[in-house]
Amino acid sequence: MTFDDFNCLNRRDLIQTGALLGAGIALAQPLPLLAQSGALSDVRAAALAGKDTAIKRIRDWIALPSIAAENLNMPEGAAYFAGLARDAGFTDVEIIPTDGHPGVFGKIDVGAPRTLGLYFMYDVKQFTPAEWSSPPLEGRLVERKGLGTTMVGRGSANHKGPEATFLSALHAIRAAGRTLPVNLVLICEGEEEIGSPNFRQLVTTPRVLAALRSCDGVFMPTTMQGLEGNAAVELGAKGIIELELIASGNKWGRGPKNDIHSSLKAIVDSPVWRLVQALQTLVTPDGNTPAIEGWFENVRPLTEREKSLITQAISPVTEGQMKDAFGITHWIDDLPFPDALIRLAQAPTVNIEGLVAGHTGPGGMTILPNRAVAKLDFRLVPNQTRAEAVQKLRAHLDKQGFADVEMKVSGGYDPTETDENSRLIRTAMATYRKLGIRPDLTVRLAGSWPGGTFTQPPVSVPVGRFGLGTGGYAHAPDEYLLIESTNPKVAGLVDSVMAYAEFLYTLAAID
Amino acid sequence: MTFDDFNCLNRRDLIQTGALLGAGIALAQPLPLLAQSGALSDVRAAALAGKDTAIKRIRDWIALPSIAAENLNMPEGAAYFAGLARDAGFTDVEIIPTDGHPGVFGKIDVGAPRTLGLYFMYDVKQFTPAEWSSPPLEGRLVERKGLGTTMVGRGSANHKGPEATFLSALHAIRAAGRTLPVNLVLICEGEEEIGSPNFRQLVTTPRVLAALRSCDGVFMPTTMQGLEGNAAVELGAKGIIELELIASGNKWGRGPKNDIHSSLKAIVDSPVWRLVQALQTLVTPDGNTPAIEGWFENVRPLTEREKSLITQAISPVTEGQMKDAFGITHWIDDLPFPDALIRLAQAPTVNIEGLVAGHTGPGGMTILPNRAVAKLDFRLVPNQTRAEAVQKLRAHLDKQGFADVEMKVSGGYDPTETDENSRLIRTAMATYRKLGIRPDLTVRLAGSWPGGTFTQPPVSVPVGRFGLGTGGYAHAPDEYLLIESTNPKVAGLVDSVMAYAEFLYTLAAID
Repeated sequence: MTFDDFNCLNRRDLIQTGALLGAGIALAQPLPLLAQSGALSDVRAAALAGKDTAIKRIRDWIALPSIAAENLNMPEGAAYFAGLARDAGFTDVEIIPTDGHPGVFGKIDVGAPRTLGLYFMYDVKQFTPAEWSSPPLEGRLVERKGLGTTMVGRGSANHKGPEATFLSALHAIRAAGRTLPVNLVLICEGEEEIGSPNFRQLVTTPRVLAALRSCDGVFMPTTMQGLEGNAAVELGAKGIIELELIASGNKWGRGPKNDIHSSLKAIVDSPVWRLVQALQTLVTPDGNTPAIEGWFENVRPLTEREKSLITQAISPVTEGQMKDAFGITHWIDDLPFPDALIRLAQAPTVNIEGLVAGHTGPGGMTILPNRAVAKLDFRLVPNQTRAEAVQKLRAHLDKQGFADVEMKVSGGYDPTETDENSRLIRTAMATYRKLGIRPDLTVRLAGSWPGGTFTQPPVSVPVGRFGLGTGGYAHAPDEYLLIESTNPKVAGLVDSVMAYAEFLYTLAAID
Repeated sequence: MTFDDFNCLNRRDLIQTGALLGAGIALAQPLPLLAQSGALSDVRAAALAGKDTAIKRIRDWIALPSIAAENLNMPEGAAYFAGLARDAGFTDVEIIPTDGHPGVFGKIDVGAPRTLGLYFMYDVKQFTPAEWSSPPLEGRLVERKGLGTTMVGRGSANHKGPEATFLSALHAIRAAGRTLPVNLVLICEGEEEIGSPNFRQLVTTPRVLAALRSCDGVFMPTTMQGLEGNAAVELGAKGIIELELIASGNKWGRGPKNDIHSSLKAIVDSPVWRLVQALQTLVTPDGNTPAIEGWFENVRPLTEREKSLITQAISPVTEGQMKDAFGITHWIDDLPFPDALIRLAQAPTVNIEGLVAGHTGPGGMTILPNRAVAKLDFRLVPNQTRAEAVQKLRAHLDKQGFADVEMKVSGGYDPTETDENSRLIRTAMATYRKLGIRPDLTVRLAGSWPGGTFTQPPVSVPVGRFGLGTGGYAHAPDEYLLIESTNPKVAGLVDSVMAYAEFLYTLAAID
């Protein structure tokens, strides 16, 4: 559900999926010594002087976990982040309530011609301390082979670390005696890890909306470097709805209200069979294409330019490496590799995440269950919308005779699309190139993040993610952020701070 | 899987299901003072004198649990039961190995014209002591409201209690200075609770088979009384196969070998969708009738006599009571009640006991699972067989293009059918009538037990279950057997001992 959701897999999957999906693997190219001389050398000096403070900024924030799913430290987390924002120079910082957990809004208006929006989150994923090799709330510095010194803690990579790194860039610019080259508008939510259910409320709060609409684009600080030094520049992401379909005797008015003995199947209808029958209407017999009425009505096919970007990006990784990474031997329909990569970006999907009914333990148990649940996710592509998809799925089930099958939508959002010619994307590309980093244009992330809230009306501005450095194990134990890099291709903390500074100055200067 | 499997439901279901399915609820009729005078008064005197020993016989056996599923005390359990059999007068008692756990075989040959077979089990169901209000291995005597004094312990009802009660009848007859009126052949297995996977091996061991074929029938001691005093006489039971259908990336050669990120559904096949598609071919769209090719080929329709027995038996219980007990509002196809009861006996079923795939915990998780499992049971009616059903299901899946979907058969057996005019059934009816107990002919139990192993070739003898008294919570915590009855309609231990004695003498004397 979150843009980090690749990371809910196990560690091995995480590394492989992240490396392969995030971008093509670029050829090795050395990371330059960012701005050791040149226009921002004074900012660099300030960033170096502020390094210990910058490390402490991340560590102290990690010590206060806000977990929306557990309703843990939510007002405290909002207040803490508001303090961080004020310290970094934001004015008019306010905590904005929602129907769920509050958000934080703030601005820095320096009277510059250009304004950059910032999307932050102050919540983190749940964690189980026993699974960690280093305490998840201590932010200890731990050596990681091939990388350098990392900070281990919940939120270090997702997303307190990169966010605090960006704030440290603002501190460094100020410490160098400078005024920011652009204005900033900051919106921070506390429900990203539960699917941003109230984020639209935050964004459409009139004064927030007015501020966001004035932006050249909205971006989220993120560690985007691969181990070869290159960085992905995403032009979009699929949307998602995540939901449960539930067949039950109670709703159906047939079948049992509790689990009963399986011999009674002879005279009692089965909610499990009902679910199976409802499910199989959702896709083609091969399970690969949505068969929901009108599902493709608003789907925009990829352009030739987009397809060529996709096929150009793949050369550094072989098909065999990718198949091995995913543990598969065939793409859908035995597609050739370039076609598979185009389908990965292009196709809306209906996926079953889980099935739960009746006896789920070892062996059998002779029961006729009263209830069956399928957990599904639907990836949406432009110009599908979440609202359209929910409505069409309900209408389809009703028309197929499954009006009793409940839909419990737990979250989701529209697809995200940003023009590669937008100033935000051009700024990212130009910044990376200036820093000697190879940027890889990613046409559309097959995963999802709620960027569509900004790209679609009423905000309607470009979005992107940007940032050097690396981290890992988001959503998993031993989540980390690289602090001191021993890999010359990958930025550590100070270089990451400087990349954000370069980004702001590039945005101010670009056409 | 076992004939006690109604009891794997919760306590409430257990009581309701047992009361309603076991037999029609008869009108109240007082239990006579069994043989306080008359031909067996000397045996009754011996049974009364042996009562404390009979109680200890059950309790001591309960203290040694043999659990096949956990490979717990299996050789010990076989040896212990062999000792019980020798004590009760069986000769040539031997422990017979199988590919699984051993069985016990023994005989009592008194040179009588008639021979009765006995089916026993020495294994018990698993238990969790913390769930019990009285220690499961202590066999404590506990008062039970409306019933009297019960013994609580694992196996007290299923099946050590009734079996030990029968052995106590043999002790009483011997203590009265008598010779048994019939010969006995005893076969006891240790794998009843895991579906009797090696029972056919035991039964077809040449010397066992020869002995069983000499029997007028095989019966299992069982508490068969309802709280109104009546007792069911079953003419048969459905057979069963229990199995898992498994779709996986590994077997399919498509889809992933491990769970992968759900965004990859766009280019990777899904074993979960594959399972859903395979499942929906097994039944009609309403989920109520098997659609497996040739499934009904050998199904024998119920006779008019059988149908009339079914509809006659239902008068004491209302349709509303039964629906309430099962928590349903409609029978399949909105059948009228008599038709529903006929279908309950008549219809072979395909039931989904459970579905397990991917994320089964709360909420969602964006994964594409590599494996999906459906747990099914198939109830079989005469003249279907387990072997036929397994073969036809495999052939059906193969023909439908699902050769990769694995079938993991965990157990099962053929249907059971015994002629109501067989000497065994006539003996049961005559014994109950003699004792003033109303017998209810049950045409076919909708549940299953492995009696078909005896009724079908190569043994080919009638089978039945017989016994007064009552017990409950088989497979559940606080399993109990009635010892001292305060309900004048229901037999306690001594009356149950005497009913077995009466049964043996009736068998010897009947035409």
